[in-house]
Amino acid sequence: MSFDRIAIIGAGLIGASIAHAARDAGAAKSIALFDADADVRARARKLNLGEIPDTPEQAVADADLVILAVPVGAMGRAAQSIASALKPGAVVSDVGSVKGAVVEAVKPHLPEKTIFVPGHPLAGTEHSGPEAGFATLFKGRWQILTPLGDSPAERDAQLKLAQFWEKLGARIDVMSPERHDVVLAVVSHLPHLIAFNIVAMAEDLESVTESEVVKYSASGFRDFTRIAASDPTMWRDVFLNNKDAVLEVLGRFSEDLAALQRAIRWGEGDTLYDLFDRARRMRREVIDAGQDTPAPNWGREN
Amino acid sequence: MSFDRIAIIGAGLIGASIAHAARDAGAAKSIALFDADADVRARARKLNLGEIPDTPEQAVADADLVILAVPVGAMGRAAQSIASALKPGAVVSDVGSVKGAVVEAVKPHLPEKTIFVPGHPLAGTEHSGPEAGFATLFKGRWQILTPLGDSPAERDAQLKLAQFWEKLGARIDVMSPERHDVVLAVVSHLPHLIAFNIVAMAEDLESVTESEVVKYSASGFRDFTRIAASDPTMWRDVFLNNKDAVLEVLGRFSEDLAALQRAIRWGEGDTLYDLFDRARRMRREVIDAGQDTPAPNWGREN
Repeated sequence: MSFDRIAIIGAGLIGASIAHAARDAGAAKSIALFDADADVRARARKLNLGEIPDTPEQAVADADLVILAVPVGAMGRAAQSIASALKPGAVVSDVGSVKGAVVEAVKPHLPEKTIFVPGHPLAGTEHSGPEAGFATLFKGRWQILTPLGDSPAERDAQLKLAQFWEKLGARIDVMSPERHDVVLAVVSHLPHLIAFNIVAMAEDLESVTESEVVKYSASGFRDFTRIAASDPTMWRDVFLNNKDAVLEVLGRFSEDLAALQRAIRWGEGDTLYDLFDRARRMRREVIDAGQDTPAPNWGREN
Repeated sequence: MSFDRIAIIGAGLIGASIAHAARDAGAAKSIALFDADADVRARARKLNLGEIPDTPEQAVADADLVILAVPVGAMGRAAQSIASALKPGAVVSDVGSVKGAVVEAVKPHLPEKTIFVPGHPLAGTEHSGPEAGFATLFKGRWQILTPLGDSPAERDAQLKLAQFWEKLGARIDVMSPERHDVVLAVVSHLPHLIAFNIVAMAEDLESVTESEVVKYSASGFRDFTRIAASDPTMWRDVFLNNKDAVLEVLGRFSEDLAALQRAIRWGEGDTLYDLFDRARRMRREVIDAGQDTPAPNWGREN
């Protein structure tokens, strides 16, 4: 067993799922959770997620692994709240969707004799809160580690953390925090931003009512509402903390969209066809890579 | 029974699904299909979709209902190809995703003693071709009729067509062609355009490789690849033929996206939170209206 006792700070969808998955996999002898919100702690207790003490210090005392599972903007405060109670040699990790900013916010608070290995599981659903957590959330999904050093102690911590996540069903990948933030801006942050934008826009239109949008949403729009239902605090923090990479890829998106707009205006059918045909091929690659179901319409019953 | 014999021009996903659904529901005594592509006709024969003659005239001879199920840009030619063989009193309909342009393209070709009732079933998957068709595609989905007149003969045709689609499992809605095109630009055409754009953009990036995009696509991007896998010919024609409504809503989307970009650049967290929170509420309405599954992640196994 990589870690005897783990502590999870933040009992939302991800924190609760780690607790479920670690218990099911026998990946730790004991699991403690803390959430800064007393109501969330009460709900987590009802769900039997593990020990739920009333202070972060109690949760991390004696923990071999501490995972920060709070929104990116709350990572610094979370690190500060546990710093004095961390056991020497403890491994600290996190699940933030941004890595550069989290390293900057967390690292300064951690005692020297602890080892910080930032991480990001590419897993989630559109639901939030402890009740949304489930044990198989990480199964077959990527856990990206962005190690900060390669001393023997750090390499040992990275290996143990990787083994822990593998027990939870995840596949491990390693890259730098900077690389992570550029890649995630493309595959995750921009898609969410666009989904939020089109859904909020549709609500504001004068030409079509909100109830019409809802009524006919199965013709395309509904797909965007799913990721636009993700936790607003989490996503606000992502955009505030990965600003440069997001703005760069957003600029590229808008530029390409302007070109597409022009092709429509001037009736350039071949340009449209070629672009749509290329987009179609990407779907095949996603399916072949096992990253989505081949079932038409995701197997939804209409 | 509303119609004894129906003819379907175009044996793609929609045409083949109408054939399956009409047979399963006993909605017609006989079904004929025609496709301008000899290879598609051969495949449709193997699938036992109905009588598959080698000319459009043979398919529509004696048909009480003829449904044009070809891309919007091919509707005019399809109407022309059947015009001389249509039986007096025959009802002609279509399934085009644009209604104004289809009316303009089709109406002039039809003989006076036939009755044109344009229609659009809000149903489909990302797959194409006769093999992609299935009988339950229209179950619980909206069939929008955009009638052109209200003489007794026209009202009778509209009623019979509505009954036919109800037998196929659809729910009926009625609006003007102009209204249809504005509403669909919002709920269907813009979402598809944006999905095509982000998927094609991701393929072109220098900062992140295509294989990285595919590998990590489950973090958001994959959702866009599904609708971007739809038939490129069909979608080219949609954008060429609903230009004004699409350009207007696209302008609005870009304007809102620019405001969002500015909020990110200036770190306006409250603006971001409020917008994301509003977008989240729309998801609840879509679920409550029965327009999508409440299962997290659409019930995909990760």
